[in-house]
Amino acid sequence: MSKRADGRADDELRDVKITRGFTSHPAGSVLVEFGQTRVMCTASVNDGVPPWRRDSGLGWLTAEYAMLPAATHTRSGRESVKGKVGGRTQEISRLIGRSLRACIDLAAIGENTIALDCDVLQADGGTRTAAITGAYVALSDAITYLGAAGKLADPQPISCAIAAVSVGVVDGRVRLDLPYEEDSRAEVDMNVVATDTGTLVEIQGTGEGATFPRSTLDKLLDSALAGCEQLFVVQKEALALPYPGVLPEPEESKKR
Amino acid sequence: MSKRADGRADDELRDVKITRGFTSHPAGSVLVEFGQTRVMCTASVNDGVPPWRRDSGLGWLTAEYAMLPAATHTRSGRESVKGKVGGRTQEISRLIGRSLRACIDLAAIGENTIALDCDVLQADGGTRTAAITGAYVALSDAITYLGAAGKLADPQPISCAIAAVSVGVVDGRVRLDLPYEEDSRAEVDMNVVATDTGTLVEIQGTGEGATFPRSTLDKLLDSALAGCEQLFVVQKEALALPYPGVLPEPEESKKR
Amino acid sequence: MSKRADGRADDELRDVKITRGFTSHPAGSVLVEFGQTRVMCTASVNDGVPPWRRDSGLGWLTAEYAMLPAATHTRSGRESVKGKVGGRTQEISRLIGRSLRACIDLAAIGENTIALDCDVLQADGGTRTAAITGAYVALSDAITYLGAAGKLADPQPISCAIAAVSVGVVDGRVRLDLPYEEDSRAEVDMNVVATDTGTLVEIQGTGEGATFPRSTLDKLLDSALAGCEQLFVVQKEALALPYPGVLPEPEESKKR
Amino acid sequence: MSKRADGRADDELRDVKITRGFTSHPAGSVLVEFGQTRVMCTASVNDGVPPWRRDSGLGWLTAEYAMLPAATHTRSGRESVKGKVGGRTQEISRLIGRSLRACIDLAAIGENTIALDCDVLQADGGTRTAAITGAYVALSDAITYLGAAGKLADPQPISCAIAAVSVGVVDGRVRLDLPYEEDSRAEVDMNVVATDTGTLVEIQGTGEGATFPRSTLDKLLDSALAGCEQLFVVQKEALALPYPGVLPEPEESKKR
Amino acid sequence: MSKRADGRADDELRDVKITRGFTSHPAGSVLVEFGQTRVMCTASVNDGVPPWRRDSGLGWLTAEYAMLPAATHTRSGRESVKGKVGGRTQEISRLIGRSLRACIDLAAIGENTIALDCDVLQADGGTRTAAITGAYVALSDAITYLGAAGKLADPQPISCAIAAVSVGVVDGRVRLDLPYEEDSRAEVDMNVVATDTGTLVEIQGTGEGATFPRSTLDKLLDSALAGCEQLFVVQKEALALPYPGVLPEPEESKKR
Amino acid sequence: MSKRADGRADDELRDVKITRGFTSHPAGSVLVEFGQTRVMCTASVNDGVPPWRRDSGLGWLTAEYAMLPAATHTRSGRESVKGKVGGRTQEISRLIGRSLRACIDLAAIGENTIALDCDVLQADGGTRTAAITGAYVALSDAITYLGAAGKLADPQPISCAIAAVSVGVVDGRVRLDLPYEEDSRAEVDMNVVATDTGTLVEIQGTGEGATFPRSTLDKLLDSALAGCEQLFVVQKEALALPYPGVLPEPEESKKR
Repeated sequence: MSKRADGRADDELRDVKITRGFTSHPAGSVLVEFGQTRVMCTASVNDGVPPWRRDSGLGWLTAEYAMLPAATHTRSGRESVKGKVGGRTQEISRLIGRSLRACIDLAAIGENTIALDCDVLQADGGTRTAAITGAYVALSDAITYLGAAGKLADPQPISCAIAAVSVGVVDGRVRLDLPYEEDSRAEVDMNVVATDTGTLVEIQGTGEGATFPRSTLDKLLDSALAGCEQLFVVQKEALALPYPGVLPEPEESKKR
Repeated sequence: MSKRADGRADDELRDVKITRGFTSHPAGSVLVEFGQTRVMCTASVNDGVPPWRRDSGLGWLTAEYAMLPAATHTRSGRESVKGKVGGRTQEISRLIGRSLRACIDLAAIGENTIALDCDVLQADGGTRTAAITGAYVALSDAITYLGAAGKLADPQPISCAIAAVSVGVVDGRVRLDLPYEEDSRAEVDMNVVATDTGTLVEIQGTGEGATFPRSTLDKLLDSALAGCEQLFVVQKEALALPYPGVLPEPEESKKR
Repeated sequence: MSKRADGRADDELRDVKITRGFTSHPAGSVLVEFGQTRVMCTASVNDGVPPWRRDSGLGWLTAEYAMLPAATHTRSGRESVKGKVGGRTQEISRLIGRSLRACIDLAAIGENTIALDCDVLQADGGTRTAAITGAYVALSDAITYLGAAGKLADPQPISCAIAAVSVGVVDGRVRLDLPYEEDSRAEVDMNVVATDTGTLVEIQGTGEGATFPRSTLDKLLDSALAGCEQLFVVQKEALALPYPGVLPEPEESKKR
Repeated sequence: MSKRADGRADDELRDVKITRGFTSHPAGSVLVEFGQTRVMCTASVNDGVPPWRRDSGLGWLTAEYAMLPAATHTRSGRESVKGKVGGRTQEISRLIGRSLRACIDLAAIGENTIALDCDVLQADGGTRTAAITGAYVALSDAITYLGAAGKLADPQPISCAIAAVSVGVVDGRVRLDLPYEEDSRAEVDMNVVATDTGTLVEIQGTGEGATFPRSTLDKLLDSALAGCEQLFVVQKEALALPYPGVLPEPEESKKR
Repeated sequence: MSKRADGRADDELRDVKITRGFTSHPAGSVLVEFGQTRVMCTASVNDGVPPWRRDSGLGWLTAEYAMLPAATHTRSGRESVKGKVGGRTQEISRLIGRSLRACIDLAAIGENTIALDCDVLQADGGTRTAAITGAYVALSDAITYLGAAGKLADPQPISCAIAAVSVGVVDGRVRLDLPYEEDSRAEVDMNVVATDTGTLVEIQGTGEGATFPRSTLDKLLDSALAGCEQLFVVQKEALALPYPGVLPEPEESKKR
Repeated sequence: MSKRADGRADDELRDVKITRGFTSHPAGSVLVEFGQTRVMCTASVNDGVPPWRRDSGLGWLTAEYAMLPAATHTRSGRESVKGKVGGRTQEISRLIGRSLRACIDLAAIGENTIALDCDVLQADGGTRTAAITGAYVALSDAITYLGAAGKLADPQPISCAIAAVSVGVVDGRVRLDLPYEEDSRAEVDMNVVATDTGTLVEIQGTGEGATFPRSTLDKLLDSALAGCEQLFVVQKEALALPYPGVLPEPEESKKR
C-alpha cells in the first residue's frame, strides 16, 4: 500500500484549527487552517440589500473568495490588476454563498446584507472547503452581533452547522482532505458540503482526465461525511468560547 | 400525485433531437434540442495550442457557452456589452470543457485545438446538459474531419460517448430533465455527466434553499443514469448518418 | 465577361428566405437567409426606456448585432471573452438601430423599448443588410404583439417597410448582394437601406483601396434599389402569414 | 427663405484654416479649423507594423479620433475613465483610417506605421470631416519627413489629395458644412470624402428620423463635391510653405 | 560648472505664458506654456455633485489629467484604447484636484461641480506643475462665471493663488523647472505646490535610483518657492485682463 | 494640551512588531504590525524580467499593494470585482516599488524579478508606511534566499535599510505615526521614507483642506526621521534571527 506523504491514514483529516477574532473590524473574523492551508474568513454586516431584493423584507448573504498572490507555490497574478475575476474564483465564490445560504433564514435578519470574504493567505489544497468551514463560524459570530444589536426577528436564524471537505482518489485509494501534492494528481476529486443534521448541501465530483464508477462515488461520500462529522466538533469547540470582540448595545437600549 | 405540467412521467426525457450539419463552416456543427431548449454546438479545429501547452506534442480542447440575449423568457443583457463574462457562464463553459476532455486522447490530435462553442438559441431548462450532449456529437464530427485530413496519430481517439442530463426534486418527487418551469422551483437540482461505458464524469448536486438526504442523492443518480442511457441511443442514431459536409483530402494525397 | 462563381447574373439576389417564429420567447423572432448567410433577428419588448428618455412619453428602439464565433470560415474570438465590443460590431449595431427607427413612430408605443438582436449564425457576406431586412419583419411582429396587448396609441405605427442590400464593384462589374468571396475582393463596397415608398434611409459607400467616380455610385444605387424592391416582396409574403405565436389578450379584457 | 444663423449662403463653407507645425514632436502636426471647430491632427511615424502585417514588406496607416472632454458645449466624460471607446468614436476612427489609406501606396513606406491622431479641441459640427481634411496635410508632412530620412521606396507615394465635408438638409434646404446648431436638427446628414482627381472615397448619408429621395442625394453630392474643391485649394496653399520643422538627414548620409 | 542645455541659469524658469479664452465652450479655458510644455486647462461647471456629496450644500472640484498620444517624443498609446487609466495619470489627476481644492471654499459654490481638465498638447517636462499653474487661472475664470450667474454664496470663494513648479538635482546641481532632457536623468526630482500667501500645499520629492540628504531638500525647496513667486506674477498679469468670453446674466435678472 | 486618544506622546510610535516566516511559499514573508494596522508583506522571486528589460542583464523589483475588503471599518468593495485598480491603490503600489528599488543593486540579482506584495489584513492608518517597513524585511529574506541559491553576482546587493512612517498635524500638534482616528482629521499629512544612512528616499506632504508653513514641514521631518530611527532598530532585531524557512542548495552543488 502506498503511504500518504504526510503520514496520515487515508480517512484522516489534517490538523484543523479555527481562530475566532482574527481581526477586529468585521462582525465575524476567523482564521481557519487545514494543515498548511490558511484562509481568513470574515463576515461583514451592511445595511440594505441589493436592488433586486429591496422592499422584500428579506436579507441577503453573499460571498467572495480570493487567493492572495503569494498564497500559491508560484506567485499568481492579482485579479484586480488583470481587470477581471477568473472563472475558478467566481465558481468558488458562488459555491460558498450557496452553501452558507442553506443554513440561514434570511427573513430573520431583515434588509441587511452579510458579506462573507474568504481570502486565502496560504494554499495547500482544499481552500474552498476550508473557506466554507471557516465561513460558517464567521457567520455565527455575525449573527451573534446582529442579535446583540437587536436586529434579529428570530433569535436563532441558523438552522444547522455547515462544513465541507475534499475527498479524492489518489494512487487508486479513496483519501480524505487532499493537500496540494495529492490534489494535483488525483484521478477523481470531490467536494462535499454537509450539515450537522446529516444532510447534504452540495456535492461536486469530477473525474480528472478519467471517469469513475458509481461505487467509487459511494466510497468518496462515506469518507467525506465522516470527515465533516469531525469538522462539526472543531466548529463547536471554537464557538463554545465567548464572542471575541465587543458586542453592540441593543438599539432599543441605546435610544433610552 | 402531482402531474408534470407537460404530461411527462417523472422518469421521462423531453423529446430529444440532434441535427448534424446545422451550419457549414465548422468541422462539427450540431443543433441539439431537449424539448424547447435549443443549443447550437460547434466544434472548430484550429492549428496550434495555447502558449502553456506548446511543444508538448499534445492537443487541447476548450469550450465556451453563451446565451443569446433573446433566448430567455425575459431578454437578458449581452455579456460582450457588459464587458465581462458572468460567473454562471464561466462555470458552465468550464464544465463543458472538462466533460468532453474526459473522452478524448489529446495526444492523438497533435498540437491542434478543438474549440467547442455552445450557444443557446432558446432556453427552457437544462441548457448545460443539452450543450454537453450536443457537443459530444459535434466533437465526433470534428474528429472525423481531422481523420480525413490525415491529422490523427490514433484513428480512434475518442474512448467513449459523453452525455448529460439534469435531475431534481420538484413537488417532493424525483424528476428527470427539468424544464425551466420545474427547474426554477426545484428543491434539489443535479447535473450528471456520464459515459456510455457506465461511469461518471462529473456530478453536481445542490440543495436550493434546502438540504437533502443521501438517499435522495441515490434516487437522483438512478434517474439521471437511466436518462443518459436513452441519450446515448439518440447520439448513436445521429452519428449513424454520413458526415454532413465535405471532408478534406488527406494531407498526404494533397501533396501528390 | 467574368462570371460570378455561384452562376448568378450581376443584378441577381441570392435565394432569400424569411422564417417567422424561429424561436418562441421574443415577441418577434425571424431567421433570415441570403444564400449561406443566416441571421437570427429577434425583437423583444421591455417595459420602460433608457434614463435619458424617461418621462418623455416616447418609446425607444435599440439594436445589437453580433457574430457567433463559428459563423465565419475561421473561428473568431468571442467579444464577451475579449471584454469589449469591437468597432465593426458597434458600427453595425448603430446602423441597424438607426435604420429601423426610420420607419416607426416611437410616440405610438409609449414608454416601452423594443430591443432588436441580430445574431449571425453563419456568415457569407452581407450580414448587416440581411440583419436589417430580417429585423424589419421581427419588428413588425413585435408591433402586432404590442397591438394585441392594447399597448399602441396608434394602431399602425410603422410608416413603411425597410430593407437593405449590399452592392459592389467586383472584377470591374457592378454586382448585387455580394457573398464573402466577392466582398473580400471588391473594389467598391456599398450598403443601401431603402423604404418601400421609394426613399433612402442610409447609404454607405467605400472605395476599398481605391476611389470611384460618381457615375459608379449611380450604377450601384440603381442595382441596390432594384434589389430592395425584390426584398420588399419577400418581406410581404412572409408577413402575409398569421402571427406565428400566441398573442396576448388586450390588457383591458384581462382586467374584466 | 430661411437664412443660416451665421449669415452664410447655403453652399458656402465656414472660414477654413490649416496651420502646419502646430506642435513639434510628431513628423506632421496640423491644427485645422472649420469655423469654431478645431481639430489637432498629428501624424507619427513608428518603426514596424502590427503583427498581422509583419514580413509583408508593406507599411500601415492607422487613425484614432477623440474628443477632449471640454470640446463640447456640455462637458462629456472621458473615454479612458469610462474604460471603453464609444461606438461613435470607433466609427469615426475607422472612417479616417480608411479615407487616408485610399491616397497612399503603403508599399512605398516599408514596414513603418503612420499613426494619425485627430483630437478635437473644440467641437462645432463637422469634426470628422475637418479631421480628415487636416489629417491629409499632416500625412503629407510625415511623408516629406520619411523622404528626407531616405525611407521611401517611391519618392511620391501619395496619389491624390483627400478632403471631406459634411452636407445636410436643414429647414428643407441643402446646406454645406453644417455647424452644430444646424447639424443637430438636420433632416438628412451626409459626409463625403473625395479626391482632388474627381473621385469619391467614401460617402455616408443618413436620414435622421426621416427618409430622403434619391434626388436629394444628388443635390447633396453636388454641394459636397463643390465644397471639397475649395478645401483642396486651402490644403495646397498650406502645403506650399516649407516643412515647418527640422527634417532628418538621409540615413545614408548619416552613415558616412 | 556644467551649463544647462538651454542656456538658463540653475534658478531660472523657462519662458512661461498663460493664454486665457483658449477655447470657447468651458467657463474657463487656458493654454499654459512652460517653454515647450503646453497644457490646455479647462474648468467646466456642471449642476450637481457626486452621489456621496448630495444634500450636503457643498460643491465639488475634481480634476483629470491626460497626455495626447503625440504629445511625447515617441507616440504613446491612448488610455481609452487600452481600456484603463494608468497609475501615473491617476496619480497626477488626484494631485491636481487636491491642490486646487486647497484654495477654494466649496460651500460658496453650492451643489455645483467644477471639473478641471488638463490635457497635455506637448510634453517637455513639468507637465503636472504646469497643469496646476494653468488650472488655477481656469478655475478663477470659472468662479467669475459663477459669480456673474449669481450662483456664489460668497463673492470671493478663492482664498489664495496656487502655483507649482518642478525642481531637481541634475549633474549634481539644484535646478529649477526641469525640461524633459534634464528630468529624465535627474538624481532627485521634486514637485512643489505653493500659495501666494507663503504656505505649502503639497510637496513630493523622490530620489531616482538614489537617496538624498535633508540639506538637499532644503535647497530644492528654496529654489521651488522662489520659482513659484515668479509664477504668481505671471498668473496675476494674465488675470488682470477682462474675462475672455461672454458672461451670463445673473439668474435673478433673467427671471425679471 | 490635547492628549492622543491612545495615550501616546506626540513623538511616540505605536507598538511595532515584525514577524518573519508568516507564510511558507514565498522567499520572504513578513507580518508587520503598527498597533492595529497589520500588513502581510511577501517577496516572491520569479525567473525573468518584464519585456522592456530583457537582455539588459539587470533584474527588476516591483510592488503591489492591496486592501482586503474587510480590513477597513466599513467593508470596501473588492477591486478585482470592480474590474479596475483604484487610483489610491496604484499610487501606493508605485511608491512602495520606488522606495525599495532605492536600496538594491538590480544588476546583482541577474534577470530575475522580485515581486513585493503588501496586502493589508487590518487597517488603522499608516498602511503604506507599514508596508514599506515590512517589505524591506521580506526583501532581505528574498536576497538571503537568492544568495543561498547561488544567484547573486554581488553577495550583498542591499546598500541600506529602508523604513517609512507617517506624521501629521492633528489638533494643531505635530504627531508621529497616525492611527485612522487621527489621520482622518489631520490638517497636514506626510509620509517619509528614509534610509538608515541618514538620507531621504521619498517625502510626500499634503495639506488636507489647508496649507502649511515651511516651519511645519521642518518639524514634521524631525519627528518622522526620529521615528524611522526606531523602526530601523526593530527591523534589525527581526533580521538578527535565522532565516525562517528552508534555504535552497546552491545551484552549483546541486549539479554535482
